[in-house]
Amino acid sequence: MIRVGIVGGTGYTGAELLRLLARHPQATPAVITSRSESGLPVAEMFPHLRGRLDLCFSEPDTGALAECDLVFFATPNGTAMKSVPELLERGTRVIDLAADFRLKDPALWERWYGMPHQCPDLLAETVYGLPEVNRDAIRNARLIANPGCYPTAVTLGFLPLLEQRAIDPSWLIADAKSGVSGAGRKAETNLLMAEVGESFKAYSVSGHRHLPEITQNLQTFAGIEVGLTFVPHLVPMIRGIEATLYARLTDDSLDLAALYQSRYAGEPFVDFMVSGSPDTRSVRGSNDCRIAVARQGDIVIVQSVIDNLVKGAAGQAVQNMNLMFGFDETLGLEALAMLP
Amino acid sequence: MIRVGIVGGTGYTGAELLRLLARHPQATPAVITSRSESGLPVAEMFPHLRGRLDLCFSEPDTGALAECDLVFFATPNGTAMKSVPELLERGTRVIDLAADFRLKDPALWERWYGMPHQCPDLLAETVYGLPEVNRDAIRNARLIANPGCYPTAVTLGFLPLLEQRAIDPSWLIADAKSGVSGAGRKAETNLLMAEVGESFKAYSVSGHRHLPEITQNLQTFAGIEVGLTFVPHLVPMIRGIEATLYARLTDDSLDLAALYQSRYAGEPFVDFMVSGSPDTRSVRGSNDCRIAVARQGDIVIVQSVIDNLVKGAAGQAVQNMNLMFGFDETLGLEALAMLP
Amino acid sequence: MIRVGIVGGTGYTGAELLRLLARHPQATPAVITSRSESGLPVAEMFPHLRGRLDLCFSEPDTGALAECDLVFFATPNGTAMKSVPELLERGTRVIDLAADFRLKDPALWERWYGMPHQCPDLLAETVYGLPEVNRDAIRNARLIANPGCYPTAVTLGFLPLLEQRAIDPSWLIADAKSGVSGAGRKAETNLLMAEVGESFKAYSVSGHRHLPEITQNLQTFAGIEVGLTFVPHLVPMIRGIEATLYARLTDDSLDLAALYQSRYAGEPFVDFMVSGSPDTRSVRGSNDCRIAVARQGDIVIVQSVIDNLVKGAAGQAVQNMNLMFGFDETLGLEALAMLP
Amino acid sequence: MIRVGIVGGTGYTGAELLRLLARHPQATPAVITSRSESGLPVAEMFPHLRGRLDLCFSEPDTGALAECDLVFFATPNGTAMKSVPELLERGTRVIDLAADFRLKDPALWERWYGMPHQCPDLLAETVYGLPEVNRDAIRNARLIANPGCYPTAVTLGFLPLLEQRAIDPSWLIADAKSGVSGAGRKAETNLLMAEVGESFKAYSVSGHRHLPEITQNLQTFAGIEVGLTFVPHLVPMIRGIEATLYARLTDDSLDLAALYQSRYAGEPFVDFMVSGSPDTRSVRGSNDCRIAVARQGDIVIVQSVIDNLVKGAAGQAVQNMNLMFGFDETLGLEALAMLP
Repeated sequence: MIRVGIVGGTGYTGAELLRLLARHPQATPAVITSRSESGLPVAEMFPHLRGRLDLCFSEPDTGALAECDLVFFATPNGTAMKSVPELLERGTRVIDLAADFRLKDPALWERWYGMPHQCPDLLAETVYGLPEVNRDAIRNARLIANPGCYPTAVTLGFLPLLEQRAIDPSWLIADAKSGVSGAGRKAETNLLMAEVGESFKAYSVSGHRHLPEITQNLQTFAGIEVGLTFVPHLVPMIRGIEATLYARLTDDSLDLAALYQSRYAGEPFVDFMVSGSPDTRSVRGSNDCRIAVARQGDIVIVQSVIDNLVKGAAGQAVQNMNLMFGFDETLGLEALAMLP
Repeated sequence: MIRVGIVGGTGYTGAELLRLLARHPQATPAVITSRSESGLPVAEMFPHLRGRLDLCFSEPDTGALAECDLVFFATPNGTAMKSVPELLERGTRVIDLAADFRLKDPALWERWYGMPHQCPDLLAETVYGLPEVNRDAIRNARLIANPGCYPTAVTLGFLPLLEQRAIDPSWLIADAKSGVSGAGRKAETNLLMAEVGESFKAYSVSGHRHLPEITQNLQTFAGIEVGLTFVPHLVPMIRGIEATLYARLTDDSLDLAALYQSRYAGEPFVDFMVSGSPDTRSVRGSNDCRIAVARQGDIVIVQSVIDNLVKGAAGQAVQNMNLMFGFDETLGLEALAMLP
Repeated sequence: MIRVGIVGGTGYTGAELLRLLARHPQATPAVITSRSESGLPVAEMFPHLRGRLDLCFSEPDTGALAECDLVFFATPNGTAMKSVPELLERGTRVIDLAADFRLKDPALWERWYGMPHQCPDLLAETVYGLPEVNRDAIRNARLIANPGCYPTAVTLGFLPLLEQRAIDPSWLIADAKSGVSGAGRKAETNLLMAEVGESFKAYSVSGHRHLPEITQNLQTFAGIEVGLTFVPHLVPMIRGIEATLYARLTDDSLDLAALYQSRYAGEPFVDFMVSGSPDTRSVRGSNDCRIAVARQGDIVIVQSVIDNLVKGAAGQAVQNMNLMFGFDETLGLEALAMLP
Repeated sequence: MIRVGIVGGTGYTGAELLRLLARHPQATPAVITSRSESGLPVAEMFPHLRGRLDLCFSEPDTGALAECDLVFFATPNGTAMKSVPELLERGTRVIDLAADFRLKDPALWERWYGMPHQCPDLLAETVYGLPEVNRDAIRNARLIANPGCYPTAVTLGFLPLLEQRAIDPSWLIADAKSGVSGAGRKAETNLLMAEVGESFKAYSVSGHRHLPEITQNLQTFAGIEVGLTFVPHLVPMIRGIEATLYARLTDDSLDLAALYQSRYAGEPFVDFMVSGSPDTRSVRGSNDCRIAVARQGDIVIVQSVIDNLVKGAAGQAVQNMNLMFGFDETLGLEALAMLP
């Protein structure tokens, strides 16, 4: 049984970590910090934890965190990088669910996130926590950059085609859609149900922070230069991401189903559907990524769905934790999606 | 490990049973019947089960069902009573999630359900599967009538007050609200999202079939004649029931919080909140019933929430199964509610 | 053509006033104030007004407002009472959509709203703007207290029964449900879609500010002392209120349908349904109140639905304006409800 | 005042026609047919019409329809083509809201719609009812093919770029999303709220019937061969379409805003936003199409939103009717979008 800490536990990612960890047979949430809610029992903010998690929010305190085997950062971008060096030095391993350690190039990070990086020297050793490409490195990592939600869905969708050199890499389109929990638990007018309910729209159309992350993924993992257009949209539902991906096939004779089945054979959390279209509810609350492929002429269309809070955040973090500590990779992640 | 059968697996109650049983450590779904979908892999209809349940729908066949230790009926009203006698005779225990065995009086059943009862002789031995009042009887039962969704929420809400003789039993008001999954998975125009989304209404205002069931519960379990008005409403959400209950207090000095806490002390799935109002999302996907109480003058107001498909149907059925077979009562029901 | 001003135009009530007034043939929005958004074109905040309303938010300025024939206050409680006396003095008529002038007793107001009233001397002359009871007084009023949303639905529902002395007035139950726009356009975490979507709950169970308003209405308009229990609930939809009302009939032979039909004969915005249950979508976007009645034994159950932003706020305000200025009562309010 | 008939009035398109026509100052719904509901007052099926439309459904009868000045067909595909020749012969003009007359090539129609065309000789004279390209022809048409919902949004979005030869026409991507009312009012399990609520997915990914219609539009109206990939998606909301369009700019120096503003200058129902992203709620219930444009490198991204039941169906049909009969083009279509 390992002791884990959570920094920033009042958001949806933190709440989802608690939901999963409260029932994990090998990990115990020992510390959960929140500057604003220090002293409050976690179950008063999140009533579904009543009677299942007897823990209070506490002031952020590196000393207390350093007594954990692992610390999850579920904080706004730019927070983790301030504390991670000390925690690593004291022997605590770290999974950052924010973006602080996702981009390898600190200049690129500064451009997209609007602040200088505080520990660029750690970027080289950081492992990008996508088990489907980095499983072995994750096992031994001290510091994991947990992937973004959109990057998880888009990367897993495009990867087999790029690895196989089956598509023209110079123009890739990713039209992605997310439920509103992806925007976080922030007191903002534009996230009110009366604003976003019963409505649909694109956002960040000129450039979203997940664009450089996805581009880096595709280029690093497939070893090929790519040109990507990425447009996210807001869906009037709470959970779920669907990404519809477009590319031009360069090999007309390719057996797409065989390619995806073989690439993801044995993956516990990637399911390829030979026919049909995956819906987000089929992964709601679960750590699955479900993928299907179709064609219109020489254009290949990939559909990739995940739960943004699970495979797109907390679930993938737990999957990474399981790998880091030698647990069964699926431990604590067995629950099926909630359908309906 | 016991073998269980499910009759009528294509509805939401059947799907929810599968979701829970596919991960149950002591029970294996061995047979699932559907006349219309015979031969179809279950996971083709319910994609969240892909890779997690390798079973096909089969024709209803009492012989195959009789080889199970337990059979769940997730069928329309009037179906179970045709097969239950034979199954019991062959030694298979039964949990009926429909209404066939809920009312003790066959004449009352016939009046509300519009058909004669086929095995009224079994009604006396049938145990009403509400563990909070019938735990011991459930353990030894051959035949369980699994409670209706509204009756579960309303009964657990009113019961402490009635047992304590703290309210005037002659006028009780239960204003209950349910998500649309409560209406089942039926191809009906009036359940389309374009019809029920973004709208709210009462239904069956002159009398709903759960009225006699609730009345029977309150009278049987509290041992007192009651006069109940019950009005259900349809909420534009998928899961969840909230019941707001009104009664006149006869003892002004009663400590309501102490009463509820003491009545439900030790209950694994009933949570009393001393302050605040429970929301349905705090029990979404879980087997919990969460209750709070308030007053306006001498009127006591009880709020009781459940997930209609879990504590209101499949989860309670699994809880009953656990009791019947000597498993830990919470086995397979540990998952926390999905919030957000 | 009259000139109208709107104070506090950035909330949902203000936006709804603009939607209705932008197309009103006899009224022109001339001034719309917002301290925080001064200078911003209204259509930049509310894109559905693009090209249809050429007006900017301006600083609150009593001088500019006093040049209007009528000023609507769509402000938080406690704001209107600071400016109304001066506007009236300068000859401008006022409709307050907040609660400042709704309660006749300033002590009661202070108790429920937590601040002393600034112009209690105006309370006597204020006309409560419910045309179905105060039509003639509204025509000549200088100052209208526009009714609250819940009070509109509940008052219209109970009134025929109380006027007729057909029910026991000492215990009335109003179980009311509202869409989330009723909570206003405020940057609060607890109104996020990820918090209130797919969930249902009661709130203010120990006492809501609309309780004294409803009680005052029923007592004043029916001339009889009443005992009312009122519990509001939050529905995961944007618009709509449904109130389910319970009372004990004292006259068993009463023809309920005839009573309601006769009471509301000729009313342009109240529709009584002899059978069935009204759903909120049947009044979405329209100024209608739709009512149905049923019985369970001697308990009468009234269902009353409105759009909280129209008949429950801006639409009723326009109806009052029409009466005050001698326009056709339905002018600008002819659009049918948007179904689906 | 003209007399209009509606064939197939029980679906959402028919209901929306009634909502608009019941308040139209120059047109009266005189006949509305439904084989299944003959004799039923329309307001019993659609309660928002209670007291506002005194009409019953009647058996389809070409004689009665021929006494109308105009007949709208709001029927399933393949129905209108059976009756239209006779109506035209008897001097009644026709607007078909289904697909029967949208494709100029009867062989193409047969391939996509699975049945032979019954009056291919009428296809040449049929005017495609998109006023933004065919206004003059519409005025004099006997027979209008009212555009599909997706084709309206996608065509208006791509057209300025293609007319200007500003993009590579050989690869165009249209990723479109629709609310569930677009699927019609059909008793199908897969449209239940418990199935499509809180979920998102693509459908018809290998080819949707609107693909040939959009291709025909772009080629005809821009006079250039195009290669289009079109993928529709289902959004958990009732109304609204958003189309995100991708193309490669061939002229880097083009002023995109100026292009769209100039193309749609004077159009009463097309609004171009220089900045920001349009949301579907900003057109909900209105006949507007709202468009915005952005770039990522040399990829241009067009966002186009409409209400699928208004500009995508019934509203555009009324706009066409206004043109055909010399009314003001915006008559009966003035209501602003309902936001929130």
